Amino acid sequence: LARLGDIGEFGFLSRILPRLSPGPDTVVGPGQDCAAIRAARRPLLLTVDALVEGVHFKPGWLSARQIGRKSFLVNASDIAAMGGRPRVCLVSLGVPPSFPARDLFALQAGIVAAARAAKTTVVGGNLTRSAQLWVSVTLVAEAPKRIVTRQAARRGDRIYVTGTLGDAALGVRRLRAGRLGRASRAIARFREPLPRLRAGRLLVESGIASAMIDVSDGLVQDLGHICAESRVGARIDAHRVPLSKTYRAVLGAGDRLALHGGEDYELLCTVAERNVAQLERRRSQLGCPITCIGEITAGRGVRVVDARGELLTLRSKGHDHFSSPD
Amino acid sequence: LARLGDIGEFGFLSRILPRLSPGPDTVVGPGQDCAAIRAARRPLLLTVDALVEGVHFKPGWLSARQIGRKSFLVNASDIAAMGGRPRVCLVSLGVPPSFPARDLFALQAGIVAAARAAKTTVVGGNLTRSAQLWVSVTLVAEAPKRIVTRQAARRGDRIYVTGTLGDAALGVRRLRAGRLGRASRAIARFREPLPRLRAGRLLVESGIASAMIDVSDGLVQDLGHICAESRVGARIDAHRVPLSKTYRAVLGAGDRLALHGGEDYELLCTVAERNVAQLERRRSQLGCPITCIGEITAGRGVRVVDARGELLTLRSKGHDHFSSPD
Repeated sequence: LARLGDIGEFGFLSRILPRLSPGPDTVVGPGQDCAAIRAARRPLLLTVDALVEGVHFKPGWLSARQIGRKSFLVNASDIAAMGGRPRVCLVSLGVPPSFPARDLFALQAGIVAAARAAKTTVVGGNLTRSAQLWVSVTLVAEAPKRIVTRQAARRGDRIYVTGTLGDAALGVRRLRAGRLGRASRAIARFREPLPRLRAGRLLVESGIASAMIDVSDGLVQDLGHICAESRVGARIDAHRVPLSKTYRAVLGAGDRLALHGGEDYELLCTVAERNVAQLERRRSQLGCPITCIGEITAGRGVRVVDARGELLTLRSKGHDHFSSPD
Repeated sequence: LARLGDIGEFGFLSRILPRLSPGPDTVVGPGQDCAAIRAARRPLLLTVDALVEGVHFKPGWLSARQIGRKSFLVNASDIAAMGGRPRVCLVSLGVPPSFPARDLFALQAGIVAAARAAKTTVVGGNLTRSAQLWVSVTLVAEAPKRIVTRQAARRGDRIYVTGTLGDAALGVRRLRAGRLGRASRAIARFREPLPRLRAGRLLVESGIASAMIDVSDGLVQDLGHICAESRVGARIDAHRVPLSKTYRAVLGAGDRLALHGGEDYELLCTVAERNVAQLERRRSQLGCPITCIGEITAGRGVRVVDARGELLTLRSKGHDHFSSPD
């Protein structure tokens, strides 16, 4: 079986480049010193995010194709959080020489397939040797007409979250334990994030969202970023946090993993009271469920309360790549 | 001494983000889910390139600040090769938890300083844990009025190269051997590439260059890319390849390292005969020397000849990250 060290950098590129077809924005595609893309009428959104073997996943947790897909999708989630429309991406790869060439083709095909599904063209990249597999994707998107960041949540705004929380963290827990059982849907959520591009665009362009972030490091921690940057506090009603059937069946509705688990890649946004009616009217256009889970308050920081209004104390707020244990 | 594992991802970001000032293109700077930049009238050039510890440099070869500077400069060289004007960049970092926090600040400061010197703003990034240090920079530039790639060299075109070749490779050889001696200038060339942004822009916008590439993997190999993509051959006159005083003193003018050494980050371009006079007239505006080293020919591939016209055979054509020995 050919390893990357056998076919070499140029052997890989000579087989990959012909498979990368140009997109509507492409002036110069992959294989030159730079890609060139058409001038855009709108501002552009730019984001970069990386997956590292041994950090974001252990050997066996993801197929090579899934690694490729996920490396695109986590970036698309950041674009969704600002309401953008993904256009082109660049892929920077660090790969061990012992890595099977076939797997690298599968990884690359995964990126291209996930990009294509989001109408995005892979216009460039870089391949280097590395002891550890890592994939860093830079995604360029067309900005919406209005910019929404984490900085404009106001006291009294409702807090909404798309989809369900805690599934990916449950999936990781099961993968770690080697017991997959009833949690296969949760594992699928870890393996294949569902970036909420349609919902993000609608929530921004309609003027519904006052602040937005994607939940990647855990609900409490990511809501904490909105609070810190908007200089407000927040109350989460734990019993209103949306949970999947799998989560309820495996962990029970009382488990707190959904509050801090990470890797949800759902959208968390704040909505001024005057825009709640519009959100309700347009709910069916979002392409995913959305649930009110609390309210922006005076003060600072995130409080989590139960159905009786009693304060819950959490051991973990979310994920820090360097402070968190594996 | 604080290590990155002690201060954490958010500890690092909270100290770095206030130091990153917005630039003329910034709509949304670092610290949000995406950066946003103003719409551009011109097409954009995009490139990504990474430095990996143990692959592109061994411990001790570069200070943390130099790693940062170089990770920007190698990308700027790709932009130079297409005549672009760098505008904004994103930085994706993989860092071991044991990495000293002070060094990570220095690395980041090196990127920002090199970017600023090229009138470029750091608008975003990502930090992840990794077993091995790596830095992947995505650079966005304004495209010139005309696009020059590797694909339009024609038979009879003269081949030109900026600056001198082989210095960085000599520097690496000395660093590897632990004997620095007279080669400190060569080592400086390895540590701090000099991207030829001004020359690149002029050679493209004036219409002088028919094809261009930056010499990063070695002269013969990189010229080989122009030949393959333009479907032509090339003759290099080895005795005309520009060599520094240090190179001549340490290796002698007859040494072939300059033909395949890599990491030169000089520009290699082809010039139609009708444009040679214009190049000579504008030579002083390039900001660096430029030397004619051969000619595009019929056939395929790169031949290297000596002063008597005798064919030289090379053991190495250049660098392949996976096929080359360390």
